[in-house]
Amino acid sequence: MAILVVGSVAFDSIQSPSGQVERVLGGAATHFALAASFFTEVQVIAVVGDDFTAKEESVFKARKIDTRGIERVKGGKTFHWAGEYQSQDLNDAKTLATHLNVFEGFNPKIPPEYESAEFLFLANIDPVLQANVRRRMPKVKLVGGDTMNYWIHDHRSALDQVLRGLDILLINDAEARLLADDRSLARAANRILTMGPKALVIKHGEYGATIFFADGEFGGRSHPFRAPALPIEEVVDPTGAGDSFAGGFMGYIASVTAEGTEVSPKALKKAMFYGGVMGSFAVEKFGTERLQHLTREQIEARFEQFRRLSHLD
Amino acid sequence: MAILVVGSVAFDSIQSPSGQVERVLGGAATHFALAASFFTEVQVIAVVGDDFTAKEESVFKARKIDTRGIERVKGGKTFHWAGEYQSQDLNDAKTLATHLNVFEGFNPKIPPEYESAEFLFLANIDPVLQANVRRRMPKVKLVGGDTMNYWIHDHRSALDQVLRGLDILLINDAEARLLADDRSLARAANRILTMGPKALVIKHGEYGATIFFADGEFGGRSHPFRAPALPIEEVVDPTGAGDSFAGGFMGYIASVTAEGTEVSPKALKKAMFYGGVMGSFAVEKFGTERLQHLTREQIEARFEQFRRLSHLD
Repeated sequence: MAILVVGSVAFDSIQSPSGQVERVLGGAATHFALAASFFTEVQVIAVVGDDFTAKEESVFKARKIDTRGIERVKGGKTFHWAGEYQSQDLNDAKTLATHLNVFEGFNPKIPPEYESAEFLFLANIDPVLQANVRRRMPKVKLVGGDTMNYWIHDHRSALDQVLRGLDILLINDAEARLLADDRSLARAANRILTMGPKALVIKHGEYGATIFFADGEFGGRSHPFRAPALPIEEVVDPTGAGDSFAGGFMGYIASVTAEGTEVSPKALKKAMFYGGVMGSFAVEKFGTERLQHLTREQIEARFEQFRRLSHLD
Repeated sequence: MAILVVGSVAFDSIQSPSGQVERVLGGAATHFALAASFFTEVQVIAVVGDDFTAKEESVFKARKIDTRGIERVKGGKTFHWAGEYQSQDLNDAKTLATHLNVFEGFNPKIPPEYESAEFLFLANIDPVLQANVRRRMPKVKLVGGDTMNYWIHDHRSALDQVLRGLDILLINDAEARLLADDRSLARAANRILTMGPKALVIKHGEYGATIFFADGEFGGRSHPFRAPALPIEEVVDPTGAGDSFAGGFMGYIASVTAEGTEVSPKALKKAMFYGGVMGSFAVEKFGTERLQHLTREQIEARFEQFRRLSHLD
C-alpha cells in the first residue's frame, strides 16, 4: 500500500570527522522516501526552488518515488542546512546555517492522486502544517509522525493537536524526555502514550530503538519491544538516520499490511528491525549516497545480521 | 562449577532521587557474589574490618556464599564509599567520600579450599593485585575481569598485564572509549581485543550490553551479540548494577559449562541476557536489598521478559 510523506526536501552542507560535502540532496522527506521506497510505493509532498533540477529529481525517479507533490516555486531557492558533527558526539549536529528559503512559506497541497494513500508520515515540520495534512487525510489506515525540540518547547499546543491524531510517534531520547518532562525513558513513554499516539518509537541512536504501546492497542496487552542498532566502526554522516529509520519502519508495515486488515504487532516488531537496518545504511555515506545505491538483497542480508546480533537461537 | 571473586566488600552511603541510605552493605565482590549465587557456588576473597559483623556475614551465608576468603582485620574499619546520583544522569555517580580503610592494605590471600575454582572474576581493584591473583590461579577455565577509569589512566602498564591474562573483560562505554582512545565503540572493541581478552563485554547502562569476540575465539567466526536492558520506570540505586551483571553473566556460564568442555558461544549469549536480568533487579532497590530477596523463579520470569523484549518470534 502507498505511503504519503510530507516534509522537507533540502540541500545539506555537512562536515563530520570523515570529511565534508557541499549542498548534497537531503531533507527529512527525501531520506524517508528513499528508505521506504525499497518496501512500497511512496508519494512525496514538499516544496523546492529553481535549484532543484532534473539531477535531484532523478534521485527520486530512480527509486520510482512519486514526485508530483513536490511543489516548485519559480524564482525561489530550496531549503539549505549546514551542520557539523564532532567526533565527541556524532549524534548531535551543530547547526552552522539554516536558510529556510521556500520552505518558510510551505503550505502542503495534496494532489488528488495522493488522496487514496493508506499510510501517512508527517515528517518534522511545523505542527500546524502537520495537523492540516492530517485533517485532510481522514481515511488513512495509519499515521506516523516526527517532531523536534523546537516544536516541543515553543509550539506545544499545536503539537498537542498533532499528537492526538497520530497512531505512532517516532522521536529520539532527548525529544521523549523533553516532551514528557521526565528523565526516565520508561516513565516518559507511558506519559507520552496518554497524549494521543497508540504507539511510541523512541530512537536511541547507536543503541537501537524501543517501541512502547498504549494499553489495548495493536493486539491487546503489548510489551515494549527493542531493536538493536549495528555496531558501526565509522559513522560517516548521521544526517537523516532517524528519517531513514522511519522510512524503513513505515515502508515495511505498508508492504505487509493487506487491505482491510489491521497492522499486526508482529509487523510492528519486524518494522523496528527494518527501521534499524535502513538507519544503519544511511550513516555509512554522506547524504543519500548509500540509500541511492542499495539493493533489497543487501537489506535482507543486513536484517539477518540484526537478527544474529540480538537473537539467542 | 565454582566461581572465585576477588574484590571489595564495603559499606555504601547512597543518595539518589528515590531517597538515601547510610552504610548499607555493598562493594563489587558483594554484588557479584550475590548475583552469581543464584546460578552456582561462589567463593569470595576480600578484606573487612571489625564493623563487618554477623549481620553482614549472614547476607552471604543466606545465599550459601563461601566467605572463608574474607579476611578480617582486627581494629580495622571496612571500606566506606559515599556517593550521590542525580536525576540528570543516573548512570554517573558523584563520589562524596571514599574511605579505603582496611582496603588500602588489601593483599588477597587464596585459601587452599579455593584453589580448585574453575572460574575467576577479578572485580575492579588495583591491577597489580588482579595480576597477582591471576598468576596464582593458573588452572582456571575462564577468567573475567573489570577495571575503571582511574586504573586505565594512571596504572596502564599494570593494567596491560592484567588484560593479557583475561578471557573476558567487562567494562562500560566510557571505560571502553578511554581504554582504546576511540569514540567509536565498534572500533574501540576491536582495538581492545588486540590487548589480550578473547571477548569483551561493553555495558551500555539502560541500553543493554554488547559482547564482541576476538577472531577465532569461542567457536570461530563469532559476530557481536547484544542483550537489551529492561526499560525501568524508577532506577532507585544504580550502585552495583555492573557487578550484578557480571555475577549473572559469569554465574550462568559456570552453571552450564560441563567439566572438560569449552565455554560455548550459545552459553555466552544466554549469559548476556542473565547479566542484564541481574542488573535490572539490582537497581530496583538500594544496596543489595533486591538481590537478597530474589528467587530463581523471578529470575527466569524476567529472562522471558528480556526475550519477549528483543525477539521477533
